[in-house]
Amino acid sequence: MPDKSLRMRRAGGDGLVTRPVMLAIAGDSAAGKTTMTRGLVEALGPDRCVSLCTDDYHRYDREERKELPFTALHPDCNHLDIMEQHLQLLATGNPVLKPVYDHATGELVRPELVEPAEFVIVEGLFPLWSKLSRACFDVTVFLDPPEEIRRGWKVARDTSKRGYTQEKVLAELERREEESAAYIRPQRQNADLVVRFAPIEGRDDPAGTSLSASLMMRPTIDHPDLTDVLQSGLSRAMHLKLERDPDGRPVETLHVHGYVPREESLGVEKAIWSALGAPDTETPECLGRLGDARSEPLAIAQLLLLYHLTDAAR
Amino acid sequence: MPDKSLRMRRAGGDGLVTRPVMLAIAGDSAAGKTTMTRGLVEALGPDRCVSLCTDDYHRYDREERKELPFTALHPDCNHLDIMEQHLQLLATGNPVLKPVYDHATGELVRPELVEPAEFVIVEGLFPLWSKLSRACFDVTVFLDPPEEIRRGWKVARDTSKRGYTQEKVLAELERREEESAAYIRPQRQNADLVVRFAPIEGRDDPAGTSLSASLMMRPTIDHPDLTDVLQSGLSRAMHLKLERDPDGRPVETLHVHGYVPREESLGVEKAIWSALGAPDTETPECLGRLGDARSEPLAIAQLLLLYHLTDAAR
Repeated sequence: MPDKSLRMRRAGGDGLVTRPVMLAIAGDSAAGKTTMTRGLVEALGPDRCVSLCTDDYHRYDREERKELPFTALHPDCNHLDIMEQHLQLLATGNPVLKPVYDHATGELVRPELVEPAEFVIVEGLFPLWSKLSRACFDVTVFLDPPEEIRRGWKVARDTSKRGYTQEKVLAELERREEESAAYIRPQRQNADLVVRFAPIEGRDDPAGTSLSASLMMRPTIDHPDLTDVLQSGLSRAMHLKLERDPDGRPVETLHVHGYVPREESLGVEKAIWSALGAPDTETPECLGRLGDARSEPLAIAQLLLLYHLTDAAR
Repeated sequence: MPDKSLRMRRAGGDGLVTRPVMLAIAGDSAAGKTTMTRGLVEALGPDRCVSLCTDDYHRYDREERKELPFTALHPDCNHLDIMEQHLQLLATGNPVLKPVYDHATGELVRPELVEPAEFVIVEGLFPLWSKLSRACFDVTVFLDPPEEIRRGWKVARDTSKRGYTQEKVLAELERREEESAAYIRPQRQNADLVVRFAPIEGRDDPAGTSLSASLMMRPTIDHPDLTDVLQSGLSRAMHLKLERDPDGRPVETLHVHGYVPREESLGVEKAIWSALGAPDTETPECLGRLGDARSEPLAIAQLLLLYHLTDAAR
């Protein structure tokens, strides 16, 4: 019935609409996706930016999952075909009626309308899962903290906000390990940026400072040129390094130490921001916010993503 | 970003899939849509046929609607853009995660996956609402009982199955009248078939027989040729009539009287069925079922729709 296809298109199904810039923030549970997303949404403003989480595409609720031989990290435990469909719709400027998974109760509830804004940020376990889902994004990030740090974050969050006991969280982490290795971590290799919050070996003051970050930039997209500002000898707390990814591919990594003073961080922030050709505007104040504290490495990572979002929109 | 569109398509978004035959059964609340649909689904078999109701696309639940200046019959009270999107997806062979409105409680609940089968039947208030939604269907029907008959059906159903009192149903019908006239009834003019269950004036035995039916066939699709079987003098209980629709357009109407004997009805059923070129198979037994009773006019109407579904699939 090719005629029906044509009739549908002629009737308006493929009309010209504004297409949003889309950013994927992938990573395992409690890898820091929501923290990263929050600062970006605030910097762009809720009028220009909408964010969503692919956990909402869980196929089974918490009760049903108890009977299943796999965890929420298994592709079969998620409506990944529907996730792909909704990503395509959003990427082409269409609204979706997104399912909603309530993390507090573990139930699947009433879906909600999501209309694409100028920027769409998609965080979750599976946004870089397939070739089709990846094709929907302009910029892709994978959050890659060391496992022991992520486990600490997960225990802290799930016991305080999702009503689990520490024992249950640890047991769940154990149960998920195999699927995390099989399905979540491999998405790392498909990200334009890999962000790792961790102590940097041999360089970090071991006590008292906030975590450092390695921002690995793959040449799959054009990154801002930071060689000038960083080679000026301005900073010992930040440096660029040409290296090989563990998978062997060449990458450039920006190391930002947790103890970097605010003034030095600001120098790099300004260099990134002015690379956009809009040097008059101040860098957004909300970046780097970590609860009540502030993390300069987080601010730099978020600003780099803002750079890419703004650059893709031009 | 036309490159992204291309990347998405190349990544598999527009792959070749089997496209279902789609039938729309539109009509006001309690016009008989579910009864009509049930017999068709049973005749085709649940493996080959999936049905869904567009009431599920209500934007507000029953509680929220109490505060609104319009009823569920108003377009703004429904996610009609999402309904259109889902109809397009189904028509092109894709699954959808359909919202679910629970008529028993009036709540919007967990959505459900609908995968297109060989045949998709869509019943509801709005399937013929827009040019785009209509373009998704191969065959379209509008159920058009006289208002006083529909009101009786609605009171009977809503008091027995949806927990309303008779007073509330009558008040709701009053409240809906203006929107029914403005938004629901105009869809009649876009249907290939208009089915009206009612006493036929001057011809029906007024007492004791089941309702007659007028099956108005618009020349927008090719109907089976029934002139031979009906001009043979076989039947006084069924006849074809060339007439003008109330909107002035020429139509052919098959009148089926409620008192038609089973044998005569069977003659027409066989004529319709053999027009498909498959005269060996028996006409399905489940057609015409009306609770515990049987309606020959309903059986004929359903068989006519089965004819069109099967014809469109060839």
